[in-house]
Amino acid sequence: MAQQHLDPTDSTAVSSPEPPTAPEPGGAPTAEALACYLRAQATEFLRALRLHRETGGAGHGTEESVDAARALRRSARRISGTAHTFRPLLDETWSAELCPELAWLSGTLAREHACQACLERLLLALHRLSGTAVLPAQPTEEAAGGRGADRGNLTVGAAKAGALLERQLTLARTRAHSTALQALGSARFHAVADKVAVLASDVPLAPGAAAMDLTPLAAAARERLTDAVAALPLVTAGSPYNAEALIHGLSPDPAPHPQDAPWHQVRLLLRLHRYAREVLDGAGGQLGGSSAHVRLSAAGQALDRHRDASEAAAAAAAAARTPRIAPATAYALGVLHADQRHEVEAARFAFQQAWQKQAVGAG
Amino acid sequence: MAQQHLDPTDSTAVSSPEPPTAPEPGGAPTAEALACYLRAQATEFLRALRLHRETGGAGHGTEESVDAARALRRSARRISGTAHTFRPLLDETWSAELCPELAWLSGTLAREHACQACLERLLLALHRLSGTAVLPAQPTEEAAGGRGADRGNLTVGAAKAGALLERQLTLARTRAHSTALQALGSARFHAVADKVAVLASDVPLAPGAAAMDLTPLAAAARERLTDAVAALPLVTAGSPYNAEALIHGLSPDPAPHPQDAPWHQVRLLLRLHRYAREVLDGAGGQLGGSSAHVRLSAAGQALDRHRDASEAAAAAAAAARTPRIAPATAYALGVLHADQRHEVEAARFAFQQAWQKQAVGAG
Repeated sequence: MAQQHLDPTDSTAVSSPEPPTAPEPGGAPTAEALACYLRAQATEFLRALRLHRETGGAGHGTEESVDAARALRRSARRISGTAHTFRPLLDETWSAELCPELAWLSGTLAREHACQACLERLLLALHRLSGTAVLPAQPTEEAAGGRGADRGNLTVGAAKAGALLERQLTLARTRAHSTALQALGSARFHAVADKVAVLASDVPLAPGAAAMDLTPLAAAARERLTDAVAALPLVTAGSPYNAEALIHGLSPDPAPHPQDAPWHQVRLLLRLHRYAREVLDGAGGQLGGSSAHVRLSAAGQALDRHRDASEAAAAAAAAARTPRIAPATAYALGVLHADQRHEVEAARFAFQQAWQKQAVGAG
Repeated sequence: MAQQHLDPTDSTAVSSPEPPTAPEPGGAPTAEALACYLRAQATEFLRALRLHRETGGAGHGTEESVDAARALRRSARRISGTAHTFRPLLDETWSAELCPELAWLSGTLAREHACQACLERLLLALHRLSGTAVLPAQPTEEAAGGRGADRGNLTVGAAKAGALLERQLTLARTRAHSTALQALGSARFHAVADKVAVLASDVPLAPGAAAMDLTPLAAAARERLTDAVAALPLVTAGSPYNAEALIHGLSPDPAPHPQDAPWHQVRLLLRLHRYAREVLDGAGGQLGGSSAHVRLSAAGQALDRHRDASEAAAAAAAAARTPRIAPATAYALGVLHADQRHEVEAARFAFQQAWQKQAVGAG
């Protein structure tokens, strides 16, 4: 069953590269392609911010508000990621000031959503483990309440574990919501929004940037990704049921699984590589039809699932450390923790499969 | 990833059949081949019984004694399984009397070993889950004590769970040991041993059996196996990380997982098929070199692992229902239960892989 570790730089594994559709057809993609991409993302940021304000702000739970927050994070990540990859082409002071602020913003906005998603993942898993019908995913705030009402189908342990997780993660979400609201009303945020508003029309390029080629910088981002992937235990991950992910499931170390960190790192590098491809391929994410893009996206989704399952497993383990819980509750949380760690392992397997097919050299 | 369900009767998937080495080369295997096999197994039974008495009986924990008990069970299973498959060739009253008695005997002798193996499996899993070095398997009685001394490396929960399982399974093993000793000293056992002693020289064939062909009866045993395998969810099992085995992990139903039963049934039918092959291929299990035999044996090992993991998962769940245990103990038992249910799933995957390659039609 052992899969061969695929060398992603092996050109035989790479599908024919797509022709870049940069603004200057025929020539190498230049700073103008970067400026064009950043302007588009800044415009998207401002649009999402307006929509977010109109729909009542983060956490009001309407679908539009959730979508707006997601779009806001999405463009913030793209601006800061792109500025990171193509830093030599941009004004140094500007990058050094804006990038950490955008990271702070998207991090702050992401936390509320992460708590909600983690709770939904764990409650769905509890239902699956109890052999009851799995409820359809509901992205809105009412979901948790809806699940709670259905708790009659669960065993005592599963129901108590569900209630405990709901209490703990709802509290965390409420705190994250307050923090996000405070952030969005702060002078710090207004400074970021002002900078992005300027970026929508005027990208601060470094002196001499206009003549520079983007390709080597994009290639460097790709190389950082392939190097990090090469360091992953992909042979193990490609062998199903390797039981690696749970190996520290009862470790005395209460810290999150250290084995997850290289995978989280690859997730971030994959994202940077994808953004760099977007810049080179034209204005923002119009890559839909390309099969290389589809596979890159499958690899990215596997790593998202890896991160989500890793966090959910940690949340179940943390809940089990609550003082004075019943043994049945603790037992259910143990089963749930192990289940999510196996999800971690399954996600690594899925990544290995996607990466094997991955034409990372294309574009 | 979905694997096609392999039709084991599909001749294209079947390797070239081995020439049967029955006592009458060239002709169809007859009752003489069956008699020859039964005499050999009866002789082996008597040899194992003698060795078992010389080494001090079951449960004294010496390697010879454990080996002797295993050989005793092995030949008892073969005699009763073969008598079942080829019943029309044997004296009806004799079969009807001996078969249930041999099943009782091998069942009684197996229980002590099963408790010990289950405990070793669970303690090894606890060490693996704690991220500590996995100790080498020790088949003797001292193993449990050795593990206990090493418990300092475990977390409090894992150590307490290990101690609880050790107490419960050691008690169960001690009871099984007494029951086995009583059985071996009983008049019931002496009646079985006497019957087997007669069998070693004189196989009670049915009238007209001498002229009968064994092949259709062996083929019927094979068909019962392939029919039972065809009813298994092999497409799901062949798709890694399908999360099926844990689906009732927190079910309110305290009964053993009903989804395991068809797999246990296939395990028994595979065994009967293997014994029938042994009869046809000559005197007792000299099939070592054949690749079909190797694959059949891989499929059988996967089902043994399935049964062992299923029982270990049930033991962990049962231990978690002990009153007044600490939450940390219950949590560790929950992780352990889920881990063993994933072993169940892994064993199903391994069976699917072995079966896919299986040339069940050969021999």
